[in-house]
Amino acid sequence: MRYKAVISYFGRYYVGWQRQLNGVSVQQRLEEALSKIFATPTQATASGRTDAGVHAEGQVVHFDADTSIPTEKIAFAVNTCLPDDISMLSCEVAESDFNARFNAKKKTYCYKLYLSHFRRPMLEQTHALITVPLNLDAVREAADIIEGTHDFKCFEASGSVIKNTVRTVYGIDIKTNPLRYPLSDTCDGAKSAFDCEVCISVTGNGFLYNMVRIIAGTLVYVGIGKLSPQDVADIIESGDRKMAGKTLPAQGLHLISVIY
Amino acid sequence: MRYKAVISYFGRYYVGWQRQLNGVSVQQRLEEALSKIFATPTQATASGRTDAGVHAEGQVVHFDADTSIPTEKIAFAVNTCLPDDISMLSCEVAESDFNARFNAKKKTYCYKLYLSHFRRPMLEQTHALITVPLNLDAVREAADIIEGTHDFKCFEASGSVIKNTVRTVYGIDIKTNPLRYPLSDTCDGAKSAFDCEVCISVTGNGFLYNMVRIIAGTLVYVGIGKLSPQDVADIIESGDRKMAGKTLPAQGLHLISVIY
Repeated sequence: MRYKAVISYFGRYYVGWQRQLNGVSVQQRLEEALSKIFATPTQATASGRTDAGVHAEGQVVHFDADTSIPTEKIAFAVNTCLPDDISMLSCEVAESDFNARFNAKKKTYCYKLYLSHFRRPMLEQTHALITVPLNLDAVREAADIIEGTHDFKCFEASGSVIKNTVRTVYGIDIKTNPLRYPLSDTCDGAKSAFDCEVCISVTGNGFLYNMVRIIAGTLVYVGIGKLSPQDVADIIESGDRKMAGKTLPAQGLHLISVIY
Repeated sequence: MRYKAVISYFGRYYVGWQRQLNGVSVQQRLEEALSKIFATPTQATASGRTDAGVHAEGQVVHFDADTSIPTEKIAFAVNTCLPDDISMLSCEVAESDFNARFNAKKKTYCYKLYLSHFRRPMLEQTHALITVPLNLDAVREAADIIEGTHDFKCFEASGSVIKNTVRTVYGIDIKTNPLRYPLSDTCDGAKSAFDCEVCISVTGNGFLYNMVRIIAGTLVYVGIGKLSPQDVADIIESGDRKMAGKTLPAQGLHLISVIY
């Protein structure tokens, strides 16, 4: 029987989703748990890799198992064998040809950052710190330009061997929340947002290597005035990675959901 | 010169605010940083202790220093000597008799929990997990009963030597946020909230030992129907700790702000 499951993980202590020789992966820990519960070596395939340190709220995986455990009990059973920073949130029977990787139609990632003079210990493990204000009107204007179907070669980390770099970004949504201290009224709507959290949600049909982290870095450059929204159109047109913004750090990236 | 500073810390790896023989405290790390920056042994006094594992978004401290560092640069300087899980968010000159502990007029704590069948790795370090739905109408009714000036002996951990257990709770505010997966419409307003985060903010003029964690545990008992809102009035009247709910775990407790 083929199963489809949703898992969440706190990525800080993993080399990423995929098994690697240089450390412990989420895949290894999940496959160890599945193999123990089903008492036979069991492999899991995810919707896609996530890099070292990246978090997931709704990663989707598939695996095959021949088990007498009722489907609605599988997540409970598997969780007893998983560490605290990985959890199975649901498990259901899938079509026998369901493939978590190849059948994925849309994914949503969220890049989280916060604007503050100082480190915020409660956000350090899940957000990137930006120490200057951002012009959110300009950021949203640039985000609108990125939306759509484009060759996104400019937002792909170097070293990738993928040939077709055309992808569709269905939407980029930017939400802000004021930080609790100091109480700030310069958050949303203001020309210059500061002392606030910024969540950049990007939904697309697929993503190139480091694409969301580079989009977030490019939007930050727009927010600080180092690039204009029109520059972003030119960068996409150019296909030149060197013109885009920096790759923001892994700990701010969260895989939110995968749609099939 | 006396200074007033706001600090934030992620409490997981500390024995609490106060220096202890059995591990590293936030106070120790802060005093080490202050002593290094001011090049002389420097002590810090906080608004109050926080227990092992408790977090702070806006703890207030005072300390004395004779320094040529401009006041607006002190937080930047001190942060260079603090670990990533402690941060100074502001520093200002205070009246020479300002005392972070004895001048505190109001404090707000937030107890964070989440309602889910399964552990959520992204919330594990900052929230308590409750695996059953809560009736939030009943919780809010009980919270209203706790508000006001009462003898709160029933909400004090045993072993405390404090004689006057009368405190004023100015307000208890309960906010919910749906968890991202699964997408839930049973969050706020519903009789039975589930798959959501619940933040219980309690503002008072002072708190007994473990008081907020016991209030949160008692409200959870009301939410699951083990106690009625009227029972909570009777428990306060009785002054009997054994009738109240459990002390919820430290990692869900956050000191949000202190008002002077």
